[in-house]
Order: sequence, then C-alpha cells, then structure tokens
Amino acid sequence: MMPEGDVYDRNCPSRAIVGHATSQWGGLVLGKLLDGTLRFGELRRAVTGVSEKMLAQTLQALERDGLVHREVHPVIPPRVDYSLTPAGTHVAERIRGLFGWIQENLPELVAAQRAYDAQRDGNV
Amino acid sequence: MMPEGDVYDRNCPSRAIVGHATSQWGGLVLGKLLDGTLRFGELRRAVTGVSEKMLAQTLQALERDGLVHREVHPVIPPRVDYSLTPAGTHVAERIRGLFGWIQENLPELVAAQRAYDAQRDGNV
Repeated sequence: MMPEGDVYDRNCPSRAIVGHATSQWGGLVLGKLLDGTLRFGELRRAVTGVSEKMLAQTLQALERDGLVHREVHPVIPPRVDYSLTPAGTHVAERIRGLFGWIQENLPELVAAQRAYDAQRDGNV
Repeated sequence: MMPEGDVYDRNCPSRAIVGHATSQWGGLVLGKLLDGTLRFGELRRAVTGVSEKMLAQTLQALERDGLVHREVHPVIPPRVDYSLTPAGTHVAERIRGLFGWIQENLPELVAAQRAYDAQRDGNV
C-alpha cells in the first residue's frame, strides 16, 4: 500500500496534485464548483480572465486527479457538466478557507505591500 | 476603507496574493516556516527542488505581501532569518491543512490518476 505523501519530497506525486489544486486557475475552479455543478461556459464566465484553453487544461488535470467529475449528456448540442467529487469537495473547502481569509484581510495585506514599496523606494 | 477582496475578480489584488501564497514554491515555503524561523540555506534544503533564484523571488513576494518577515542580523558573515508574520501564520495554517489532506489521501488520488490514464489509453 502506498504510504502517505510528502509535498516536500520533489519526487512525491502529492506535489503535482497540490500544484493542480492551487494553480492560478485550479484553485478558482475548485472554489467555484463548491457552489454546485457548472457547465464549461458558466465556469469560464465565473472565473474571469481564464482562456478557453487554460480552463480546459485545468479541468482535465483536476479530473485526472479525481477532484472533478465530468459528465457528458448525450443531447444535441452536447452538454458537459463539471462537479466536485467527494475528494474534490474536501480539497475545495480548504482552498476556499484560504481564499476567505485572504479576502477578509485584504486591507492589511495591501497596506503591507504599500509599506514595502515605500521603503524600497526610499520614501520612508 | 478598502472593501473585502474577491479572488474571482481578475482586477482584485487578492488574486495576486493568493497566487503568491499558493505558487509552486510559495505554499511550500509558508508551510515549512510554520515549524519555525529558518535561514535562507535551511529553507532551500527543506524545500527540495527550488533554485536559489526562485526561492529569493518567492520570499520577496511573500515579504511584500506581509506574510513573511525578513530579519538581517548585523554579524559577519551576515545572517538572514525568515519567519511568518501573524498574517503569514494564518495563511500558512490553511495551506498546511490543504497539504495534509492531499498527503493523507494520496493513495486515492493516485488511483484516480491511474484509472483516468487507463481509460484514456483504451485499456478499460
């Protein structure tokens, strides 16, 4: 049986899965799917700035990791729904917790950036 | 006063901060610093695979966001310690929770990858 993973080991497959789940678009897709099943076009509109190609690649990596379920409905035109698997829900909840903290504390974080830039520019 | 952030808004500064905190190296650095203060060389050895340049860039972004504190000790040779700020501790705890879940459930996730690959290759 495979032992637990170790993200600090560069050869551990957990590191790549963390990479998919927290990639620029992966985290946003997982967080959005926590609200419910979405079609490709709906996801693309919800995750502003993502290209069609990047969204497709992101969804494919998450599906391969077993975090996202892709369901093709045999209708015309074809309809493809994306939803979280149980594992994906666990991961997405943790990502949304991280997003939530950063969103709520954004003023403090932006103030830190401004202080850093002012000091770097010699204005302090 | 600045309102709460929205990571789904491409123009919101929270999205870049999430990007730093969950970048390939940013998350690993934050998670490792949760164990305590480390010097640059110690961090580099702890986060296997990171280059000196990438680690320096990662630390600089996290310092600018107010998540990491950099302390230069005026000794010869100079000693530079890196530690988490209170905000960095909050963020790192959430990241480590995510890492922990993925590490503990790695066998399930790797099994999903194998099933996906087998189906793609027409072996199922």
